[in-house]
Amino acid sequence: MKTKEILRKARKFAAPFRVVRGDKFRLDAYDPEDTLGLKSEDKERAKEALAAGIETLAELQDRLYAQDKWAVLLIFQAMDAAGKDGAIKHVMSGVNPQGCQVYSFKAPTSEDLDHDYLWRCMRCLPERGRIGIFNRSYYEETLVVRVHPELLERQKLPPQLVTRKIWKQRFRDIRNFERYLAGNGVAICKFFLHVSKKEQKRRFLERLENPEKNWKFSSADLKERGFWREYREAYEDMIRHTAAPHAPWYVVPADNKWFTRVAVAAAVIDTLASLKLAYPELAEAQRKELAAARRALLAE
Amino acid sequence: MKTKEILRKARKFAAPFRVVRGDKFRLDAYDPEDTLGLKSEDKERAKEALAAGIETLAELQDRLYAQDKWAVLLIFQAMDAAGKDGAIKHVMSGVNPQGCQVYSFKAPTSEDLDHDYLWRCMRCLPERGRIGIFNRSYYEETLVVRVHPELLERQKLPPQLVTRKIWKQRFRDIRNFERYLAGNGVAICKFFLHVSKKEQKRRFLERLENPEKNWKFSSADLKERGFWREYREAYEDMIRHTAAPHAPWYVVPADNKWFTRVAVAAAVIDTLASLKLAYPELAEAQRKELAAARRALLAE
Repeated sequence: MKTKEILRKARKFAAPFRVVRGDKFRLDAYDPEDTLGLKSEDKERAKEALAAGIETLAELQDRLYAQDKWAVLLIFQAMDAAGKDGAIKHVMSGVNPQGCQVYSFKAPTSEDLDHDYLWRCMRCLPERGRIGIFNRSYYEETLVVRVHPELLERQKLPPQLVTRKIWKQRFRDIRNFERYLAGNGVAICKFFLHVSKKEQKRRFLERLENPEKNWKFSSADLKERGFWREYREAYEDMIRHTAAPHAPWYVVPADNKWFTRVAVAAAVIDTLASLKLAYPELAEAQRKELAAARRALLAE
Repeated sequence: MKTKEILRKARKFAAPFRVVRGDKFRLDAYDPEDTLGLKSEDKERAKEALAAGIETLAELQDRLYAQDKWAVLLIFQAMDAAGKDGAIKHVMSGVNPQGCQVYSFKAPTSEDLDHDYLWRCMRCLPERGRIGIFNRSYYEETLVVRVHPELLERQKLPPQLVTRKIWKQRFRDIRNFERYLAGNGVAICKFFLHVSKKEQKRRFLERLENPEKNWKFSSADLKERGFWREYREAYEDMIRHTAAPHAPWYVVPADNKWFTRVAVAAAVIDTLASLKLAYPELAEAQRKELAAARRALLAE
């Protein structure tokens, strides 16, 4: 497949999952089992498409790195076992690690809690020319912290700032932060991997029953599962308030891993392609310098 | 090829380039064109071996990440155009970027210069469970800074500390630093990509003549080429003083890129294999917890 063809297909493939205006967003409208009509017998073809996509992605990244103007920020949010780690591994393995950095945000440290909540993410933003991946992010501040208000108490905020409006304020702050980033050359692409409660159960059991996967399971995951409805509402509200053309959410069906990975790859490719990346062209003075260098080398 | 076979081959392949005792080291004894007898018609087979090696590497990294005990630090040093970037790209693409981080050390910033010279590298050391790659490193302090003493002046050291013994002291400090790291679970593996002056010329000309590669060339590179002999002596001295069993140097022939990449992959695989990585086993209490979680899920 030619690159142009891949870019066209990627755009088409990602489009149904893209949310750029949140005001009418409803999570109900998205089916975790959706595969755009592809059947499990198409799995092999999907894998081939993914491999071709990753090659294109690697080429785009090479240009991103050479051009050194844009940074790309990919944010992954999801319930446990929705496949964040797997998507990162399968889509981003194959790109040059020199141009790609992944940060996994765990529970904030006491140093983090001594700062505003964007602080720890801000210091991990990708440099120009690079793809930065946030495995969880500042969005947790509107998710786990919202579902468990006791976490908010631990954030040491001056009490008069903690009002009922705090979630709306956080959404506003995040919107403004992302607009600021976009205006400074950070292309933002956000993924919500949408898994069903039934499929999460199946995956938890797999982790519990396969000794090599045991280490991936924590009893805390089961506790969080008990808050399924609260999380679902928090995710819906998050997308509703923070989807924007310069920082779209992709609500990717996550009950079929093979499909999730193709859809994520398509969205990443489409994001990079939209930047019109090119190898830097030299100014006249630089060209002269290079010509002089060439003559000097040949004369050695 | 079975994993065991790949590990055996990797060890055998990397061994001739490994330096663990420096006292008798001479760079002369290493040929930049060496290919261990492989001919250019073996290139395709070498590429296949590299692909198989990278798969094994990805598996080892997965265990490194799961076990979360060791960190791996790969250091790349070389003259310009020796192939550092290419080796990192071709050997490490294919590993999960979530477990791999690359830092390229450029000229120190004014903040860096306000600290001791290990400071900026120290903060970029890989976390446990991860592979960290230093594209250049604190070794530059014994290379470019040694070849250009005016850089040393910019380091703001108290003048009475800058004596003729400074390079010996730096080697001693680096040796002690690496011994400290090794004793704290950082497996260190250092690469000197050994390119000939003739091959560097060929590659510079390629960068100058191919518009897509122009951006990789800087006239400063040509200036540094003028100090070839001084650099060569500095590299030799560096290896002589800092090779150790827990922090070996690999002097990898770099005149043939396909060979360099296989040799680097072999050394990385051998380093990881030597750590006896395994998926974590659960303690009795944890096993009971998991069994309880499983029952709870099934009863839902």
